[in-house]
Formats: sequence, C-alpha cells, structure tokens
Amino acid sequence: MSRAGRVGAAATDWHRVLAPRSVALVGATGRADNPMARPLRWLTERGFAGRVHPVNPKYDELGGVPCAPSLADVPGGVDLVLALVPAERAASTVTEAGAAGAAAVVVFASGFAEVGEAGRARQEELVAAAWAAGTRVLGPNCQGLYDARSRLFATFTGAGERPLTGSSGIAYVGQSGAIGGAVLDVAAERGLDLSAWVSTGNEADVTLTEVGRHLVADPDISVLTVYAESLPDPDDYAALAAEAAAAGTALVVLRSGRSAPGRRAAVSHTGAMLGDDTAFTLVSRRYGVVLVDDVEELLAAATMLRGRRGPAGRALGLVTSSGGAGILAADRASEAGLAVPELDERTREKLARLVPDFGAVANPVDVTAQLFNDGGSFGEVCGIVRADPGVDAVLVLLTMLVGETADALARDLAATVAEQGPDAPPVAVVWMAGEDGTAPARAVLREAGVPVFSSIALAVRVLDAVAAGPGAAPAPREPLDPVPGDGWELLDALGVRRPWAAISTDPAHTTAAVAELGGRAVLKVEGLEHKTEAGAVRLDVPTDTAAAVHAELAALPGATGVLVQERVPGGVELLVSVDGGRDGWPPVLTVGHGGTATEVHRDVVHALAPVTPETARSMLGSLRCWPLLAGHRGVPGVDLDAAVDAIVRISRAAALPGLGELEVNPLVLPPPRSASVASTLAPDDRIATRSDPRHAEGAIAVDVLRTET
Amino acid sequence: MSRAGRVGAAATDWHRVLAPRSVALVGATGRADNPMARPLRWLTERGFAGRVHPVNPKYDELGGVPCAPSLADVPGGVDLVLALVPAERAASTVTEAGAAGAAAVVVFASGFAEVGEAGRARQEELVAAAWAAGTRVLGPNCQGLYDARSRLFATFTGAGERPLTGSSGIAYVGQSGAIGGAVLDVAAERGLDLSAWVSTGNEADVTLTEVGRHLVADPDISVLTVYAESLPDPDDYAALAAEAAAAGTALVVLRSGRSAPGRRAAVSHTGAMLGDDTAFTLVSRRYGVVLVDDVEELLAAATMLRGRRGPAGRALGLVTSSGGAGILAADRASEAGLAVPELDERTREKLARLVPDFGAVANPVDVTAQLFNDGGSFGEVCGIVRADPGVDAVLVLLTMLVGETADALARDLAATVAEQGPDAPPVAVVWMAGEDGTAPARAVLREAGVPVFSSIALAVRVLDAVAAGPGAAPAPREPLDPVPGDGWELLDALGVRRPWAAISTDPAHTTAAVAELGGRAVLKVEGLEHKTEAGAVRLDVPTDTAAAVHAELAALPGATGVLVQERVPGGVELLVSVDGGRDGWPPVLTVGHGGTATEVHRDVVHALAPVTPETARSMLGSLRCWPLLAGHRGVPGVDLDAAVDAIVRISRAAALPGLGELEVNPLVLPPPRSASVASTLAPDDRIATRSDPRHAEGAIAVDVLRTET
Repeated sequence: MSRAGRVGAAATDWHRVLAPRSVALVGATGRADNPMARPLRWLTERGFAGRVHPVNPKYDELGGVPCAPSLADVPGGVDLVLALVPAERAASTVTEAGAAGAAAVVVFASGFAEVGEAGRARQEELVAAAWAAGTRVLGPNCQGLYDARSRLFATFTGAGERPLTGSSGIAYVGQSGAIGGAVLDVAAERGLDLSAWVSTGNEADVTLTEVGRHLVADPDISVLTVYAESLPDPDDYAALAAEAAAAGTALVVLRSGRSAPGRRAAVSHTGAMLGDDTAFTLVSRRYGVVLVDDVEELLAAATMLRGRRGPAGRALGLVTSSGGAGILAADRASEAGLAVPELDERTREKLARLVPDFGAVANPVDVTAQLFNDGGSFGEVCGIVRADPGVDAVLVLLTMLVGETADALARDLAATVAEQGPDAPPVAVVWMAGEDGTAPARAVLREAGVPVFSSIALAVRVLDAVAAGPGAAPAPREPLDPVPGDGWELLDALGVRRPWAAISTDPAHTTAAVAELGGRAVLKVEGLEHKTEAGAVRLDVPTDTAAAVHAELAALPGATGVLVQERVPGGVELLVSVDGGRDGWPPVLTVGHGGTATEVHRDVVHALAPVTPETARSMLGSLRCWPLLAGHRGVPGVDLDAAVDAIVRISRAAALPGLGELEVNPLVLPPPRSASVASTLAPDDRIATRSDPRHAEGAIAVDVLRTET
Repeated sequence: MSRAGRVGAAATDWHRVLAPRSVALVGATGRADNPMARPLRWLTERGFAGRVHPVNPKYDELGGVPCAPSLADVPGGVDLVLALVPAERAASTVTEAGAAGAAAVVVFASGFAEVGEAGRARQEELVAAAWAAGTRVLGPNCQGLYDARSRLFATFTGAGERPLTGSSGIAYVGQSGAIGGAVLDVAAERGLDLSAWVSTGNEADVTLTEVGRHLVADPDISVLTVYAESLPDPDDYAALAAEAAAAGTALVVLRSGRSAPGRRAAVSHTGAMLGDDTAFTLVSRRYGVVLVDDVEELLAAATMLRGRRGPAGRALGLVTSSGGAGILAADRASEAGLAVPELDERTREKLARLVPDFGAVANPVDVTAQLFNDGGSFGEVCGIVRADPGVDAVLVLLTMLVGETADALARDLAATVAEQGPDAPPVAVVWMAGEDGTAPARAVLREAGVPVFSSIALAVRVLDAVAAGPGAAPAPREPLDPVPGDGWELLDALGVRRPWAAISTDPAHTTAAVAELGGRAVLKVEGLEHKTEAGAVRLDVPTDTAAAVHAELAALPGATGVLVQERVPGGVELLVSVDGGRDGWPPVLTVGHGGTATEVHRDVVHALAPVTPETARSMLGSLRCWPLLAGHRGVPGVDLDAAVDAIVRISRAAALPGLGELEVNPLVLPPPRSASVASTLAPDDRIATRSDPRHAEGAIAVDVLRTET
C-alpha cells in the first residue's frame, strides 16, 4: 500500500489537497448533531477561500449552500472530495471523485482493515478504485485534515470546535485521530494553533511519511510533530527524517509500541538483546529526530524547537528563585545524564553584580526572592547564563511568584529570549505555583517559545530528548558477493583474520597439521554436539601422538572428521554481530561484552551497519567493559586497532544480500601491540551454518558459539 | 541542635503550638503592604478561635485589636509567640516568650546560620536563650506554620493568600518555605487544602522529623508530605518513618541533594559505588516511605494515597478510550518495570458484555469512543478491571472527551471508586485534552482521590513510586567485641571460614606447612607491594623445595616474613562489604559481582546490615550475575548456601563498634554441593589492615584485594 502511495506521490499536487480551489462533501448531512456535519459548517463559517459543494440527492441546499445531486453535477471541477459515506459506498465515491478530477478523497468511514478479513478486502477494493481512477485516498478510518493557512477544515475531530485562528508553525501528522485530537486541543489551549493537521488512519494509500515529507518542505512549518503506531516503510521514514534535517525543520516523533516484545524468537544473544525499535532509534538519531514518550512531551519539545534549533549539547544552566528547587533540578539532571557545569568566570562576574548577596552565582544560579523585591532583572540573569559558552540549554525554576510579579517576570524573560535570537540555547521553565496565579505569565512565555512545566522531572525528560543531537551515519556499503553458507568462508571474505583450521580425515594430515602448528593445536570431532562431554576435544596434542588421537576421535560414533585448529591465547571477549535488517529496517551492528556471560553483562551498544573505524572506536568506548579493553588495575587491555579493524570488517557483512544474522561470539581480542589479529577467534569455537527461517530464502546466519569446555 | 530538639520534644505540648489558646505577635506591623502584616490579618479575619495579641509599643491597637507594649503586658498567658522582629532582637524575644510561658516561638527572621559564621553564632545564642527560658524555637529563617483545623495562620507565605477553608487530610512539613509554598498553593488550587503546614527553616531547635512525628500520629491526617534538604538525625527520620507506618499514615518524602557527589573519597569499590543516599533510601524503603522527585509527583502521590493504601504490587490495569494511548502507557510501564498483566478470565467475560465489538478486553482495555456514544458505563468498566485479582493499580487514559461527556464520565468513575472503598487499588487518570474543557471533571476526580495527569510518563513515575512497598528490615545485631585490627582475625571472629594461612620466618616451619597442605600451597613475601612484579609469589611449591624457596623469598629486600597460604580452587567472585554507617545512617551491606572487574560490571545491590539469610538470598537473586551463581550455559554455578552463610556472617561486622568499612573482594565461591566453605577466599589474596582516617579513632577497615598475578 505505502509503496503505491510513494509512487503516486510524485503525481500528487499537495497544494490541491491542503489548499483546494474546491471541496465536495459527498453524503453531506443536514443533521447538525451529527459530527459528520462539522466539515460543512466549518468550511462555510471559517473563511475557507475555495468553493464548497455539498453533494447529496436528498437536499437542494445545506447550510445555505446549493447541494449537487452527484459529484458529476458539481460545476467547475473538484480538487478535494470528502467521503462522508458508509464504508460500502466509499469505493464508488472514489471512482466518481477520480472521474471528477479530484486530487484526493478523504475516507472517514471505519469498517476496513481494522475490523478483520472482510474489511481488509474492502480496503484493497478501495485502493484499486483509487488507482483505476487516478486519485489518492486519505484514510479510511481517519479523521481527515485541516490547514490553518487555507482555512481548510476537512475533519470532524472534536478538537476542531475551537476557533483555531492562529498558525504556530507547528504541524501534526499521525495515524491516530484520538492522539491527533489531543495534540490539536492541548496545543490550541496553549496558544499554539497548529498550522496543519492530518490524520492518516489506516493508510490504505497516503501514509504519514508521505504527508510528512510534504510538510517538512513547507517554509511556514518549523516543527513537524508525528504520532506513529506503525511505520510500514522504513525507507520512507528515513527519507522524511533526512529531508526534515536538510530543510531545518525539527521533527518530533511519538512512536507507540516501542516496548512490544520482539516479533521473532531469540535464536541468538543479539536477537534477545536487540529491541525491535533499535533500528528505528538509530535511524532517528542519525538525523537528529527528537523522540518523545507522550503528548505532553511532544508539545513541550515542539514549543522549545519552534523557530529555534535544539541544544547543541547536554549542559544545563539552572536559574532559580529557590535554592531547593535548584538542587532538585540538579538531581534530576544528573540522573538523566545531563551536565550542570561550572559557569564561565566572566559569567560569574556578571552575575555577581545582579544576584543578591545571599544568593548563589554558581550553577544552579539562585537569585533568591530578594531579586524580585529589589526589582532586579531576572531576564538579564537568565540571559547571562544563556550566553555562557558552556551552556546548551537553560532551565528556569520558579516557586511562589504569582500575579503581577509573575507577569512582569515573564515579559522580562520573554524579551530577553527574543533579543538573544533563535540561535541562542533554548529556555524552559518549571513553575511550581498554581496555574490560576500564573496563567497569563505562562502564556507570555509559551508565546516566546519557552515551554512551561509543573514537573521538574518532566522538564528534564524533554530537555534530554531535544539534546540528543544527530547520531552517526553508517559507512558506505561495499558490494559483497553472496558467500556459500559457511561461517569461516564469510569471515575470510570479510578479511577477518582468524586461527588456522582444517578438517582432516587422514591421521597423516592431522599429524602434519599439528607439527605445522608447533603443538599449539586443538583437535575436535566434527559432527558431534556437546563435544566436551563426549571427550571429543583435545588441547595441545603433541605431534607424536596426533595420529593416535585422530584415530581415537574419528572412531567416536557420529564423527564425520577431525577439526585441527590453531590454538591462540585467551583475551578479552567481545560479541560482534550484524543483524541483516528486519521489516525493511537497515542492518544493525551490535558490539558488546561477550563470552559465556554475554547475557549476564548485558553490556551492548548498537549502530547502523556497516560502521566507520571512528564509530567502531566510540562504540567500544561507550561499553561498561571499556576498562577491560583500555586496560585497568593490572589488566593490560587489548589491541584496540585490531579490535576496531575486526569490528569494521564484520560490520561489512551488512552488504551481504539476504543476510539473516552474523554473530561472532566470542571475538577474543589480543593484548596491545600484538603483531597480528590472527587470534581474533578463540581456539575452542565451533562455527555452524544454517539457513535462517526468519528471513528470505538463501539467507544465512552464522553463530560462533563457545563450546562447553 | 536536633538532639536538643528531641529531648525537648517530650516536654512540648504540640496542641499549644498548633491550636493555641492565645497567640502573641511581637513586632506586629501596621504597614499592610508588609508580608509580615499577613499573620495578624489572617488570624483576625479567618476564624481563629484563640486570643490574638499584637505586641508593639508603637501602637495602641492594630487591625482593631488592642496592642500590648510588651509580652509581659499580654493578659492571660501566651501559648504561641510569633517573633516578627529582626534577627538581632530574636534571642531577647525568645527569653521574654519563655518568661510569658509560651510553648514555642516562631522566628521568621533570616540572618542566622544560613549567612555564615556570625549568623551561626547568633543561632547558637538563640537556642541557648530558648533552653534557658524553657521554650521551643521554630526556625529561624522559616515561614511559620498553619493548621486548618484551628484556623491558625501563623505564616507569611504568599500561598496563604488563598482562602484555605478546607482540610484535605494531607499535611506538609519541610525546611524550605519556597517549596512548602508551592506545595500549599498547587494543592489548594486542586481542591486539596492542607490540614497542617509547617516550615522549619534552619531547624535550630525544632526539626521537621519532630514535627512530622507529631503529625503522623494525628488521626485527621492520612498523608504527610515532607520536603527535606538535610536530615541531620537519621535515627529521628527512621523513627518518623516507623511511626507513620505504625499509624497507617502515608509518608511521601521529597529529598533534595540526593545526587550530590559523595562527601568522602572513594578508597574502595564500595565507596565509589555507594551513593550518599543509599542508606536513606534503604531506611525509607524499609518502612514503605514513598520517595518522589518533585512537587508535582509529591502532590500526585498524596492525592493517590489520601485515605487509601498504596498499591500492594506493581501490576497495572490499563483502561483507555483510545488504543494508541493504551499502547503508549504500556510502553512507559514496561520501561519503568511495572507489569501490565493478562486479565483474569472472569474479568474478561464481564468486560466483553460492556466493551463495544471493535474495542479490546485485553490489558489495555480499549472501550473506544463508541462506549460514550452508546452511553455505556465507563465507571463500571474501570471497576471491573480494578476488581481483577491480578491488578494492583488502575491507570485510565482519556483523550478527546470534554464538556458534559467528561463531567458525566468523571462522576461515574468517582462513584465507582467511592463504592469500592479505600482498600481497592488506587486509580489514576491521564487526560490528554485541554484543561478548559475538562476542568470540572478533573476536580471531581481529584476530590475522589484520583489524581489527574497530562503526561503518561509522569503518571507512570508516580505509580512506580507508590508501588514500591516496604523493604527488608535488618537482622538483629549480635554484639561483637572489638577485634585487633587484622582482617584475618575479624573474619575468624565472624566465623567466615577461609583458607589456612600462617606467617613463617623459619624455613623448617614453611616446609612443614607446605607438607601439611599437600603441595596445595602458595608462598608470598610479607612486607612487599606488587609482589608479582617482585617475583614474591610462588604457587604450588613442592615440599622438597619449600625451604629453598623460603630462603629465596626471605632474602628479598623489605621482606618481613613468608606467608604460607592454602591454595583453593577458583570460582565465581563476589564483592561483599559492610559500610559502618556514616553521618549517623545505619550500616549498609553491599553484595556485588566482584574480582578485578568490579568497577566494570557495576553489578551491586545494597541492604541494611546485618542481613537475614532470606535477605542475603534475595540480594544474590537480584544481581545481574545471578545466572553465574545459579548456573547457566555450562557454568555450574556456586554453592548458594555457602554464599548466603558467608554474606550473613560478614554482614554481622555491622555490630562492630566504630567499624569504618570491611570489604571482602573477591569472595571466591565454591561450586555447588561443595563439602565446605573453606574456600571462601582465593589463594592469591592479601589482607591488609589499616586504621581508617575517614572514621572515629580505633575504626578499622579491611580490604581483601586480589594481588597482581
């Protein structure tokens, strides 16, 4: 469906949808109490510039507007059709709309894919009709759209009952009309009437990503807020994120179902630890998308980002009228991993002239209630902190300042914020006082792009969300030919050096190999599980007994041969795996503390694959086990260049067509200044190949699992 | 100071302070614009039943009340004195108040300990005066108190400007007047006028714990909210928590400075990992204190706990009018470690009769907007979920339900909540719609003890906080005599079995010992650091060469003797340490994943020491490394009984007078069904004893550190 949508997109003139010259309402009703009567009322009463044509054979006119018996009878052509008809009449309406030259049809009715098999069939039928008629479908099971600029109110959402006269530069697109209604309603109450609002419902044809890609290119729109229950086309989502970044439009995404249990059985450590939304998060981070956890955070982030960039880092400047509130904020910030840095000396000097003696010019800056009694400039104080070179965002904490004091303070702060311009760090306020005594002040601040919270914890959550900044991009993929399904060969194709190994069926060959390895050899029976229990693993076999040991092992029931493997010294063990990508999301590299205790440590980090050496190195640096790698307390650490090289090479498996998953665990790292990376695999490792049922045919999955020794 | 307060407490008649027969306002002012004029105005205008005596030689009357020239001239005795005088006159006022028989004096003035040395001296003077005069001091640098029952308004907080006619059963006590004012103001706006409110300021005499212990015993008060910047007397805090639990009064504590960097250098792993507020948290958990992170959470928790017990567990029932909102709540809950369990089959059957076809009777329960169009009973749905045996708390998620629909819904839900009584699980609501369309409905719900949030994330934070429940109590302390400062001897005194070891200065003795150990011996030089580098550690020395090795080692420069130690097999390594308690907080036991990678794993759990075997076992079970202990993937695990025994015994060191810290790391655990616990210490361990500069003289600290091998 969404693919069809993308193809159609090129042909779709969104101007005809969001600012149509004419709108036809098929099945318009005269019953004012029916929510479906809202679009006609709003279109006729709210200054929509285009023509409005109710279509219903039962009426001559509706709401004072002439009513056409059918779409074919509408004079002068139709840009947008609102199908206010039951599900069973939707397809025929779409056909008629196409014939009338409509760019799109909004299908409000439910009773499609969301109600099971019969509905799914009806939805297929609807899309087929749209394609045949050369028009687009928004919905079905959606609440429509509105555009504040064209005064187009093509929705029945209850939130639309508000006057909605403004255009805040914030837009919304999402699948859920209910969440969308909440966003619209709360935003409007806070003086942030949305510029555009689109509910995509079942997304039979038009998807939220397609609409979003149009909206982020709209110069009036500085923030696009998105609610996504599903993102069936990850490439589309990545394109939306990339285009938003390129256009300088902030993208704030609320995705639901993130904690849903993985849709596949965990056949590997990585599978168990790789959240279903890891790839979603990595793609979002790559383009600096702001991810939020509920509608309140969505709107707070949008307020903060409106017409302004997010913070360039994670350092907070705290300004408070109460010492206690400042300490609480510092507590929450440190829990969230945000910094509360020392202020620059010049900053402290400037502050010292303004802050009363009993206050504090450290961070938090405590101006004390005295400042307000003295009529000091709170805005100036905040401005000075905001201008500190080490501050990325300012959080202001206010307690019992109400009435006129509050109003003056808000005007003062808002003026400073405006003066310092859109490139200065964002400012947020936590106001710990009743709304009634501070409502006008809160409004003044919100209008200035300063969100006002009641909860310090919530404010810090949002500052954390907007502070993330863009993440790493994957390295370019180098083409990689399909490799026969053998893990060793894949590692060789990737250039990952590993211990010498060969399968021998001849005692003489075994003896020769052991001699070649100078006794640093391990012999294992091929074809057995639980080799140790079966006595099928022998370490450091002397050359002179190699033939005998071979014979002994080869005689074990089920033995298909003897694996002669170079034995390498032990070292720090990593897990390195590449997930080939699932449900259309890009491949993900996982690096973690490996070995048998992988699930114990749960010490992993993810990145889009393949990775650059820089990314590989920073991944290692962000592991809890970094001290083991860098060396600490007598532990020598490892050859980091070798580790980075191996990780980069393994990550290139992402380019392998149809890769299921490649997991190397343990990747045993040699000590520093080691001559070679030859020992990147431990001696007692088994490589098993199997086709991965979870993926397309020909997919391969490789596990390197430590055998029980 | 606080100790003085405690001693005095017995003698203090709090009824004379919170419901005095007469109040004298020394230094009462006629300037209405002065905040200090508020107490007199409020006491005379708001129905305070006692006598009110302004005291000021400059006036004959104030606010229509006769003014006495001095406290001595006040007729009929004085219960409570408000010192509305500058800092320098505070002490003399306290003396006069004592002479007048006042039970307590509220000192509002600042300029005491909070402003440095001179102020500290002035504060000492104030306390001395109170003791000499036999009265108590609230403050200085405080905002006073009020009691809604007696209509006593002995404060100048701006939040007091509200009518404050109600008594919600929620009380507040805290050091900060600013935070206290915020709590009072926001609570009142939400229809929850506090029953009592006390700002203790500098706590020169009366502490928040002393006031709190009186308030939790007050039958009118079902929730005591506390804001604490410092808790100088941990025993008092523990007593407050214990008495609140015994009285069935919910205690909700907001403590600031929790993330403050440890006040001591980290000389051990534990020191580095033991947050300064670990003991505070453990003591709070022990008595089921609800810990919150800001004023918003404090009030939400209080609303939820008002006249009702908190949830008995961590399982949420979710009910929503929008599928999307339900999924978002499930996401946040799972992130917070709260469960969203399957509902009981009978519950689902009952729901199926009420929930429309397109809805869901799973958890989350999605009633869909249809329910409201059909006039179905939302309250009944929530009641059924609330009655489910597996549900500990109900979270209701509402989107665009406003106006009359909202009012009806709120009345319906409030009625159900009241009907099911105070023992049913608590209910919270997240309402994602403008306040203006839902304000009356929100008020109805809050009145019914149902907090209403705008943020799902915030609601889940609060549900998590109230769901914690009481934690483990420490085991009774068995008296333990001081032990000469040698780690081995302390471990022996505790009955922790460990490898045989002896220091030998005679080659013959060494040979005998090695023979005795059957070659399972390790020889180390005493008196050297970095023994390995010095070649001063020898493993598995044969008996016949023992004498020669002894001579060789004894000849090393700095050698003071040869340690002959039994060598035991390796195993899983734990860190077990007992912190002797600091700043008056009780001793804390830390158990964690030990060995050289202790800081790498950061896998530790804490408990009040000493611990019971049950607590020790559950501590092990909550470690990430539990699989290594229980056995997994070919790792055999350890002898858990041996581990529990060793932990319990080491935890008893908490009873040692003046213990600084005892840290055993690694505690090497033997495999399961091991015959003995003899191998609880690794062979190559060194025990060093030193007096601990951080603690009282005679304190000992023991570190068992793995030597570099």
